Amino acid sequence: MKLARFKVNDNTYYGQILNNRVCVLAGNVFHKFNVTDTAYDLDDVKLLAPVLPGKVICIGLNYALHIGEYDKNLQIPEEPILFMVSPTAVVGPQEPIVLAYPEHEIHYEAELTIVIGKEGRDIPIANAADHILGYTCGNDVSDRTIQKKDGQWSRAKSFHTYKPLGPYIVTDLDSNNCQVQCRVNDELRQNGHTRDIIRNAYYLVSFISQVMTLYPGDVIMTGTPAGVGPLAAGDICEIEVEGIGVLRNPVK
Amino acid sequence: MKLARFKVNDNTYYGQILNNRVCVLAGNVFHKFNVTDTAYDLDDVKLLAPVLPGKVICIGLNYALHIGEYDKNLQIPEEPILFMVSPTAVVGPQEPIVLAYPEHEIHYEAELTIVIGKEGRDIPIANAADHILGYTCGNDVSDRTIQKKDGQWSRAKSFHTYKPLGPYIVTDLDSNNCQVQCRVNDELRQNGHTRDIIRNAYYLVSFISQVMTLYPGDVIMTGTPAGVGPLAAGDICEIEVEGIGVLRNPVK
Repeated sequence: MKLARFKVNDNTYYGQILNNRVCVLAGNVFHKFNVTDTAYDLDDVKLLAPVLPGKVICIGLNYALHIGEYDKNLQIPEEPILFMVSPTAVVGPQEPIVLAYPEHEIHYEAELTIVIGKEGRDIPIANAADHILGYTCGNDVSDRTIQKKDGQWSRAKSFHTYKPLGPYIVTDLDSNNCQVQCRVNDELRQNGHTRDIIRNAYYLVSFISQVMTLYPGDVIMTGTPAGVGPLAAGDICEIEVEGIGVLRNPVK
Repeated sequence: MKLARFKVNDNTYYGQILNNRVCVLAGNVFHKFNVTDTAYDLDDVKLLAPVLPGKVICIGLNYALHIGEYDKNLQIPEEPILFMVSPTAVVGPQEPIVLAYPEHEIHYEAELTIVIGKEGRDIPIANAADHILGYTCGNDVSDRTIQKKDGQWSRAKSFHTYKPLGPYIVTDLDSNNCQVQCRVNDELRQNGHTRDIIRNAYYLVSFISQVMTLYPGDVIMTGTPAGVGPLAAGDICEIEVEGIGVLRNPVK
């Protein structure tokens, strides 16, 4: 099932995507819902970030080839490197990424992103799938100048508009088997695959839930593959996770 | 004004502390409220964490003497070091700090803690006070073993019960002029003063709001003075910020 959050006639809904239409859902997307008869052409609605997360939890250094390009001295971490960014950074498809410090080195990072569907704590790996509503595309836009200076990564990755999410939440994605790509101005920059991920979605949900309770709507950004690089005003940045769709954002 | 969040007869309220009584507030503590005639003896209520934050933003290395004890190679940072921890770590007064990994080196950290009262973004320093509801005591309990291993500090400081807050929110505190202490089993371990803080509360609210929108109920933990040290099961840890009160938690 492919879900979207969208706006039409000043109202906000969740909907199910069927071909080029979106059917309005009634109920709670994290609990119980049904598909209504009301549907719109996708061209007639504005897609929004598919979730407004309570927490945005990120994983660093989760693809071997990316670790070396970030810092040649880094090794594969013994345990996942977890950090948090501000939910106020989230924007939806087509919304501009507004560079807070255009003179800094600012990078795109294509990421498979988990959307939590059910509250949980100390979740065994075997039960992790029950706590996942689905997956979306995420762009973990990062100010490398600040990231290197601070050492801690939260500020560099929390500026307003630096966490585009979307366009859809796909509930039946095989998250262990999908391509993760980034294109800038139609040029392929990242071309990773989740078969190369060091800790997969189920492992991460279990691991994080041993630290903090996860709630419906929380998101986990699972780390970026190799090929990160700069963004500049005027660029168009597209993140595509196979089976989900394309998250497209202009850079300002 | 001294505010508390408390439970009595299975109901949760905000109240104003007057001597040894707490008077129930009607309305929204972040917006408009008035003091009602209903009051309880403090002994008859259970104090709760004075706020359930949306975001918990922490500042590292904000007292010169503490920087050297954390790592001798560290200098005073050019800009505040910001990181985020999970709101699910928050507990109230008297609630136990449950050590997730008792075999690790786990430290108390006494901190003056800001409670945001009004939404804001790009807040000038001169207006910062308008966005602060008040101040409380915070204990930034930190698993040093994980903190050093991860490099990123979010996990080490996000375990359930690792962010005690309370007992009160004081709205008229002079946050530039108060002692910040920690006692373990009645022994004084930290004895700092906010006159030694590198960036004060107003500076931090302004700085952070340039990165992320602040909302009512968000908290900012302003960093710890020198004297951090270990906690073990059976300890009683008390954080006292002058003018607020004592945040007391047993360690399990």
